[in-house]
Amino acid sequence: MEAAHLAGRILIGLVGAGIRTSLSPPLHEREADLQGLRYLYQVIDIDELGLPVGATGDLLVAARRLGFRGLNITHPCKQVALGHVDELSPDAAAIGAVNTVVWSGGVSIGYNTDWSGFTQSFERGLPGASLENVVLLGAGGAGAAVAHAVLWLGAERLTVVDADARRAAALVDALAARFGADRVGGGGRELTEACLGEADGLVNATPVGMTGHPGVPLPLGLLRPELWVADIVYRPLETELLLHARRLGCRTLGGGEMVVFQAAEAFRLFAGVAPDAERMLRHFRSLTTVDAGAGGA
Amino acid sequence: MEAAHLAGRILIGLVGAGIRTSLSPPLHEREADLQGLRYLYQVIDIDELGLPVGATGDLLVAARRLGFRGLNITHPCKQVALGHVDELSPDAAAIGAVNTVVWSGGVSIGYNTDWSGFTQSFERGLPGASLENVVLLGAGGAGAAVAHAVLWLGAERLTVVDADARRAAALVDALAARFGADRVGGGGRELTEACLGEADGLVNATPVGMTGHPGVPLPLGLLRPELWVADIVYRPLETELLLHARRLGCRTLGGGEMVVFQAAEAFRLFAGVAPDAERMLRHFRSLTTVDAGAGGA
Repeated sequence: MEAAHLAGRILIGLVGAGIRTSLSPPLHEREADLQGLRYLYQVIDIDELGLPVGATGDLLVAARRLGFRGLNITHPCKQVALGHVDELSPDAAAIGAVNTVVWSGGVSIGYNTDWSGFTQSFERGLPGASLENVVLLGAGGAGAAVAHAVLWLGAERLTVVDADARRAAALVDALAARFGADRVGGGGRELTEACLGEADGLVNATPVGMTGHPGVPLPLGLLRPELWVADIVYRPLETELLLHARRLGCRTLGGGEMVVFQAAEAFRLFAGVAPDAERMLRHFRSLTTVDAGAGGA
Repeated sequence: MEAAHLAGRILIGLVGAGIRTSLSPPLHEREADLQGLRYLYQVIDIDELGLPVGATGDLLVAARRLGFRGLNITHPCKQVALGHVDELSPDAAAIGAVNTVVWSGGVSIGYNTDWSGFTQSFERGLPGASLENVVLLGAGGAGAAVAHAVLWLGAERLTVVDADARRAAALVDALAARFGADRVGGGGRELTEACLGEADGLVNATPVGMTGHPGVPLPLGLLRPELWVADIVYRPLETELLLHARRLGCRTLGGGEMVVFQAAEAFRLFAGVAPDAERMLRHFRSLTTVDAGAGGA
């Protein structure tokens, strides 16, 4: 009995900036409790610690020494983490970002569960939605994961738009190499209007609309009821973009499910057992409802 | 409810060498479970990590960054740890060893719960035993803690014996400065026979008798039924010294209680709530009984 108890000791951390109020600890820990695992999920905030992003590698070394089973990595450390693991999953290498690190036999392996989180969220929340022509706003780390997911799901045409046209072009080049140049294009924000006219769906992968970044990531007049609209922002769960799209009659998908499914996949990698993702989703909703009731997420 | 859940997240580690089979994790975690705390006790073995004793300071920095609430420190890191904490309890400073580190508001405080563990164990296991004249075998880290405890308990005369007469003399000097030169003396092993003839009690604080260090720490012919005999070795719980003393009719005290009471005091420092020490003692006994049944501790 003690042996089983010891085997079930799972120490996990989240490395990033401004993450003190992350919902990942209760999300992981509640699921672990229900599975009878001794699981502790620790928040390691580089801002609070006064550490630069470049300290991510040192934190990985420290976590290994102190017996962490794994780490989640979030903004702004995902790209740096890529260079500090022993092995990479093909997805993480392709996306160029690591959001999950697992130690196995002393070797660290970097994964990316953001893209699979979006994939599962999309399949669950927008079943049957057309992927003929999709516009993606934002070519940063989240955008790279979403682009990978949308193309993996079968999008025939993806247009990547970013305020920084060079960043968009770099992501387009990387995607073209993997999925074919005929399936991807993109550039600066001036493309938005023309591309959206022919699009079936729109994904916002910019931070605009999240708490602290008010506003909308494109002129709302460009939306049409025929468009499906997804937002990866999850604080708040319903952004101004989603609210407007829903009122217009668009099918919509919020960012909450992506958060939950990326967490569920990370949990599976950490614990070696499958979580109940629907149960985690219900828990996530209860947590965000409590947050809202307590004065906003 | 979530807030309470988060507040109850307590991450602790044990830093030392050859500690993979330590009973501290189940001892702390079981008590925490019964108190409704989310508590994880991690083993950080410098031998397994291939780190020198001098890395203790780095491990303390790493543990603070990764959000450890505290650490227990054991052989051979207790003296080194002393130099890597921000503040010291008076006891730890006097004994010259830290076995417990707690972070509070970013500041690390070093404590020694070995001496109080011995104190409580002695009061519980040998009530009324005379402290007029006590002989202590072993002037290392454990000996320093036991000497502090015995004098704090009121010993009128303590003789410290060590194979290394200079080490004994150094401890005697330190004790004399705190408790008075008339109460302490000591030197090499040649003193044992003469001193023991007049003694009321004997404490073994050498490793002799523990698993891997077979034998007895003094000639057994020197024991008398009137002596009480305490051993801080706890693997096995009954050493050859204790077995012989008990058969001779001596009152005896094993090392298990000291382990449990030092753990209980550390738990109180870590968790900020009092543990049920008697419950921890029962749990310790069940763990050691299981160990024995499974082929020795």
